[in-house]
Amino acid sequence: MSHEVSRLLTNIKRLWTGVGEPLEHVAVLVEDGVIGWVGDQDDAPDADIVDDCRGGLVTPGFVDTHTHPVYAGDRAPEIALRSTGARYAEIAAMGGGIAATVRATRAAPWDQLRAGLRARLVDFVQSGSTTMEAKTGYHLTRDGELDAVRLLADLAGDPVLPRLSVTFLAAHAMPPDYTGSRDDYTDEAASWSAAAREAGADNVDVFCDEGYFTTDQSRRVLQAGIDAGLRPRVHADELARTGGAQLAAELRCLSADHLLKVTPEDADALAAANVAAVVCPGTSLQLRAAPPVRMLLEHGVTVALGTDHNPGQCGSTSMSLMISLAVAVFRMSVTEALHAATAGAATALGLDDRGVVREGALGDLVWWDAAHEGSFAWAFRLEPRQVWRGGVPVLPADLEALV
Amino acid sequence: MSHEVSRLLTNIKRLWTGVGEPLEHVAVLVEDGVIGWVGDQDDAPDADIVDDCRGGLVTPGFVDTHTHPVYAGDRAPEIALRSTGARYAEIAAMGGGIAATVRATRAAPWDQLRAGLRARLVDFVQSGSTTMEAKTGYHLTRDGELDAVRLLADLAGDPVLPRLSVTFLAAHAMPPDYTGSRDDYTDEAASWSAAAREAGADNVDVFCDEGYFTTDQSRRVLQAGIDAGLRPRVHADELARTGGAQLAAELRCLSADHLLKVTPEDADALAAANVAAVVCPGTSLQLRAAPPVRMLLEHGVTVALGTDHNPGQCGSTSMSLMISLAVAVFRMSVTEALHAATAGAATALGLDDRGVVREGALGDLVWWDAAHEGSFAWAFRLEPRQVWRGGVPVLPADLEALV
Repeated sequence: MSHEVSRLLTNIKRLWTGVGEPLEHVAVLVEDGVIGWVGDQDDAPDADIVDDCRGGLVTPGFVDTHTHPVYAGDRAPEIALRSTGARYAEIAAMGGGIAATVRATRAAPWDQLRAGLRARLVDFVQSGSTTMEAKTGYHLTRDGELDAVRLLADLAGDPVLPRLSVTFLAAHAMPPDYTGSRDDYTDEAASWSAAAREAGADNVDVFCDEGYFTTDQSRRVLQAGIDAGLRPRVHADELARTGGAQLAAELRCLSADHLLKVTPEDADALAAANVAAVVCPGTSLQLRAAPPVRMLLEHGVTVALGTDHNPGQCGSTSMSLMISLAVAVFRMSVTEALHAATAGAATALGLDDRGVVREGALGDLVWWDAAHEGSFAWAFRLEPRQVWRGGVPVLPADLEALV
Repeated sequence: MSHEVSRLLTNIKRLWTGVGEPLEHVAVLVEDGVIGWVGDQDDAPDADIVDDCRGGLVTPGFVDTHTHPVYAGDRAPEIALRSTGARYAEIAAMGGGIAATVRATRAAPWDQLRAGLRARLVDFVQSGSTTMEAKTGYHLTRDGELDAVRLLADLAGDPVLPRLSVTFLAAHAMPPDYTGSRDDYTDEAASWSAAAREAGADNVDVFCDEGYFTTDQSRRVLQAGIDAGLRPRVHADELARTGGAQLAAELRCLSADHLLKVTPEDADALAAANVAAVVCPGTSLQLRAAPPVRMLLEHGVTVALGTDHNPGQCGSTSMSLMISLAVAVFRMSVTEALHAATAGAATALGLDDRGVVREGALGDLVWWDAAHEGSFAWAFRLEPRQVWRGGVPVLPADLEALV
């Protein structure tokens, strides 16, 4: 189907629009990749193609705000060892941790890295995410980080993959083989910003935390990115309260991510500067610690969810699972969690054309195997019956017969 | 394929047998529904059919020890309301809670109840569970409870569904419309035991907890079941420590389930009486409270996992997800959690012919989209690439192309 064709989704029992109360007994028209009409299905206009949603639930396509999908290697043996209570030092001694992923990623041929990334992106979109943020950060060399940006930018337009918001994260960690100082690497990574922008990056990010980059170093990385035209975001106050949230407010970052250690004062700063809080229930569970999400909400901070898909902690590509975990672990309501996976998440990426179902928004929609949004909390992971990206169905039609 | 055909699973990179360390580079032969040979793939015998596991991970089929799958109705609106902090009284006032499921289940025509149950059982087996315990308990009338047993017994032999261990749970709650006393209902429910056995039940269960059945009432229900030839198990010490675990030890139940409130003294009693502890990380997360699993393990109790699939709290059918949550929430190691999903779970059902890969065990096996068992902790939910039940593949072959 080309974008010139109009498509009508009918027989929607319940449409979670993200704008006001859910609508019932409705239809949605998508034309030229954009939502053209939403209303009672008895008033639906004609369309070239009609998709029957068989009395199900439809939501906007989900927006995943935090992922690390460009990597090679399998750290499953290390993860099994860690589950026995092994300490980080033991794991590093067996050659594990982020250094293992950096080694495997650098060693992977371009085609293999691309194939692994592409397979993951298919999983994301087939799990219901039509937009995702995607970071580099497992090469930690100039050429490698720029190659990772190019890989992502190259797949960003593929009509059966999620739309991508590409984040340059050379300041993810110190390269394991780097011989200079942390300040030296900081300044090198910052100096690659313009090239990253040219290669197709949208955002710049830095791991501002104890044992990673200081707030001063992080400020240099982010400011260089801003100067090169990248939008800033920051891994902040996850392991210790080192000032990442305050830095995010100072630089008016799109988001501050993780935030396990933030205070009400930090929340006020984030809210005043319109910085979204990206929280990741999958990795929070793995760390056995949760960010103060209710406090952030009460202070008026926009909260967004991310899978934090990465090779060391969290392999999930499902925002539906994250919604369920956010309700259970973060005590969010279903409505709050859905907002954090749609419109709130779009805000955290600086995008205002998605995450809601209304005329003029992108035609990114998901039909779920459910009749009411409460099922997200119940199911732990709902599966899409169909995903449309710009009005184009992503799932093979015959999959329905197997579900 | 009939059971007369021999089938060889080859090219298994890693086989988690449940007996000693995992094996690598192996093959498994299944003949007449039973494992006939396990060994190095270079020494593999000939077979009628060869399935190439393409360098993946194979485990025994999972055993889910606690499910409530016989129900009708959708409580998603109530679940969404509960997530806003609504109290049980408000939910009951809107007609929610278990009473809502009882109403919907009683009202559902047999064919509809059967179709819903069957669809769920397909989900379970396609998620990797080749055996599951399945309870009645949403009719709470003599005829209804016996019908529910018959429904389960009728599907228990279906070769593309999980093998079932059928549990009679008329003492799940007080029937919402019952006019007599709790003691009266207890004695009625107990009096249906022989009929339940005749209808095909394997086990008897009772919800022994604060607000449900007392230990004295529970003892009467379980003893009547034992006298009728049913094996006892018990919902114990979940909401309050009312003595369920001690009762389980006294009656030498197969399992005591949930156990959020048990003490070291209770653990000693369970271990001494060979009662398995069934723990359910999905509903524990929903209740925001965990059983003391490490303490139970240290006291020598056999621990088993269950999804606790039910219409009010947990919709998951995936033991793979439960393993991941058990590692994150219960601090089990991957090996402990896998044991609790296989051999430990088989013990909790009183079955010694499954949950391991060895000659003579049932040919119930799963090939996972992974290369090492550590991936269960990482992925949150691994998907099977194939499931064999008695050597017969359950998933459509062409699904592989879509995964």
